[in-house]
Amino acid sequence: MMNPPRSISLSTYRATHTLKRSVMRDLLALVARPNVLNFAGGLPADENLPRVELQECLDAVLTRDGARALQYGAAHMPLKELIAQHMHTRGVECTADDIFITNGNQQGLELCARLFLDGGENVAVEEFTFTGILQAIQGHGAQPSAISVDLEDGMDVDELADWVAAERVATEPGSVATRSRLIITIPDFHNPLGVSMSAKKREQLAEFAARFEIPVIEDSPYSPLRFCGDTIPAVKAYDTNDAVIYLGSFSKMISPALRLGWLVAPRELIPRFTVLRESLDLESSQLIQRTVAEFLARGYLEPHLEQLNAANFARRDLMLHALERELSGIAQWTIPDGGLFIWLTLPEGTDTEKLLHDALSQNVAFVPGFAFAADGRSGRNSMRLNFSNAPREKISDGIARLAQVIQETANLRESTRIETLDSRGFA
Amino acid sequence: MMNPPRSISLSTYRATHTLKRSVMRDLLALVARPNVLNFAGGLPADENLPRVELQECLDAVLTRDGARALQYGAAHMPLKELIAQHMHTRGVECTADDIFITNGNQQGLELCARLFLDGGENVAVEEFTFTGILQAIQGHGAQPSAISVDLEDGMDVDELADWVAAERVATEPGSVATRSRLIITIPDFHNPLGVSMSAKKREQLAEFAARFEIPVIEDSPYSPLRFCGDTIPAVKAYDTNDAVIYLGSFSKMISPALRLGWLVAPRELIPRFTVLRESLDLESSQLIQRTVAEFLARGYLEPHLEQLNAANFARRDLMLHALERELSGIAQWTIPDGGLFIWLTLPEGTDTEKLLHDALSQNVAFVPGFAFAADGRSGRNSMRLNFSNAPREKISDGIARLAQVIQETANLRESTRIETLDSRGFA
Repeated sequence: MMNPPRSISLSTYRATHTLKRSVMRDLLALVARPNVLNFAGGLPADENLPRVELQECLDAVLTRDGARALQYGAAHMPLKELIAQHMHTRGVECTADDIFITNGNQQGLELCARLFLDGGENVAVEEFTFTGILQAIQGHGAQPSAISVDLEDGMDVDELADWVAAERVATEPGSVATRSRLIITIPDFHNPLGVSMSAKKREQLAEFAARFEIPVIEDSPYSPLRFCGDTIPAVKAYDTNDAVIYLGSFSKMISPALRLGWLVAPRELIPRFTVLRESLDLESSQLIQRTVAEFLARGYLEPHLEQLNAANFARRDLMLHALERELSGIAQWTIPDGGLFIWLTLPEGTDTEKLLHDALSQNVAFVPGFAFAADGRSGRNSMRLNFSNAPREKISDGIARLAQVIQETANLRESTRIETLDSRGFA
Repeated sequence: MMNPPRSISLSTYRATHTLKRSVMRDLLALVARPNVLNFAGGLPADENLPRVELQECLDAVLTRDGARALQYGAAHMPLKELIAQHMHTRGVECTADDIFITNGNQQGLELCARLFLDGGENVAVEEFTFTGILQAIQGHGAQPSAISVDLEDGMDVDELADWVAAERVATEPGSVATRSRLIITIPDFHNPLGVSMSAKKREQLAEFAARFEIPVIEDSPYSPLRFCGDTIPAVKAYDTNDAVIYLGSFSKMISPALRLGWLVAPRELIPRFTVLRESLDLESSQLIQRTVAEFLARGYLEPHLEQLNAANFARRDLMLHALERELSGIAQWTIPDGGLFIWLTLPEGTDTEKLLHDALSQNVAFVPGFAFAADGRSGRNSMRLNFSNAPREKISDGIARLAQVIQETANLRESTRIETLDSRGFA
């Protein structure tokens, strides 16, 4: 399942976190140059997008539904029913009435942040996490609290328990405060870490959330992207007390340009999401909702996912083999069973932000680890590598060029240090 | 241009405003019954949606652009260029760099509210206004201040000047506070009032906003829907000092299911909108952006608008003739030169919320005026009538049924009053 280190670090943290994604946007602008081999993104490969099937579905929907596909309208009930069926494959008992349609997981995060955060709260997240989660938290005046992650089986649930206990004492001595706390986790093929939370930890988390009445947001855009290993039920599957809100998305499993996702929530919260959503952007497109329903109803999803996951699996292996060949003994990395990302850790003292500039000069790109740090500063010696997007035939060479830059940087630092010693007269 | 009354009322107001739209949603659920003649919505008629053209454009884009139309991506530059050209027809000098793509005007309002409001501010709006404007303001802890509207030429700019003066004294004696104030106006074919702001007032408003450094949000989803009268430049066309942000939308001019709009803002604000947007829902669909660009590039918009506006014009006239026939001397109404709405005012004491229940029993629907009241309580004797959506052949009969309900209610009140007098022994 993994390559060491097992646990990245332990730090429960409160800090105002600057909007990292804008830094990343500037970096990623460089990545967009056509000759750059992009290990930085979180995209499927172009050839793995189901263009022909979507074209068929769009055409069929417009021909059959006509104006109904082009007007305003309530959330499309057949789509919600099909999503409920999909959730059953994740072990979640739910019906269409428990589902709220979103414009993708980021909107789900924003809606949950609006619902649960008033400002000043601490929100437990994995110590490295999706930047959009950090933005949603900070956009509502709350702070992320970094919970350690075991790279074999996910978030440290014991540490999470300690965090909740500490928060209880800190916020309201002698009584239980529940509204001011929230947990946001990415249990499946974690972004950026690639790790999945074990079934045992999911069960513990759900039990724990119910007992302490802490809402858990389960951000799960990658769960359909498993290419090996055993299926693990959603955290929501273990939720017997309406403590978990599940966020799903069609962006990674069909196409990002659909801008369509959903959330599964306690039924009484659905009308509240409806009102919050109206103020944000009213509703999701009837055309897109009906097109995705058509795609699912025609049975296009399963063969598409088989093809997509096989392609991702092959790319992951190409990248792992190249890493083994080039960086064995120098770096450590995770071995994901699905999703899009590998997390690579270099020796302490390496600065992957600086390394990115050197790598870009060699036309290879990745995302420096600090961009995902809940504490805003960890992960300077780490990077996220995406294996799903780069052309198969270029992955091995790309990792070789990246390894070369890593080794040159290490050598340079070595010689710089010696020079510095010389100039000080110590050698 | 109009039918009296000229000025609805004068009230500069601060009130926490309950989320009216949820009340309206419950009412409008009744409206959705198939046999109800719907004067309540804000939709184009089904037959006036350019289904065939959109189907062509979607297909062409997917065939030509393939995966690029299905991936993540930056805002589509050709679309922004075509929007800039459209803005030139509104008298606005701008380029693609001044334009930010949104998921429709509601998202534009939300983004502006996020950018300008911290909580506690007063925001000047027309005394009756789009409920989504009130939600955006209140969603960020600010309050609407109702500015009177002259039903001939729009918002009372002198009253607005007084409001700003009063706000200045109230908030920061002896100095100018600019960030805590904001004006949001719908100058073209106002929702719900149907009135358009005169060119003279637009010029005054822009001059005034620049002088006092007050941002003006010009919410203009209806401006392409003019079917008679002379074109009036946008408020933004008179803006020489980057004080005005213009919000436009493809929802009313092409299709609501595109969920696509834009804003024109001072160029230095565009990166801030980009960051704010990322946290809300990341970006707009590449597929939809490219499809709309194709629609515009093929020259489909102009003939479509000609057909749409001619259809709306005919429906407006059908409604006006029926109102004249049925309610002359009883009600007063506006006569819009475009857009979707007529504002109808009944004698003081009439309650249009109660009236709606009676009207629904006669299978006719409208929106009670109070739903749009910035003060949360005015407009109980008013209603908004939509003329664009109902079938042509049913408009006259629908207004006749509505008039009957109005007259019965009036008679009932009359007899109730007499009965009450009787029982008290005064007659």
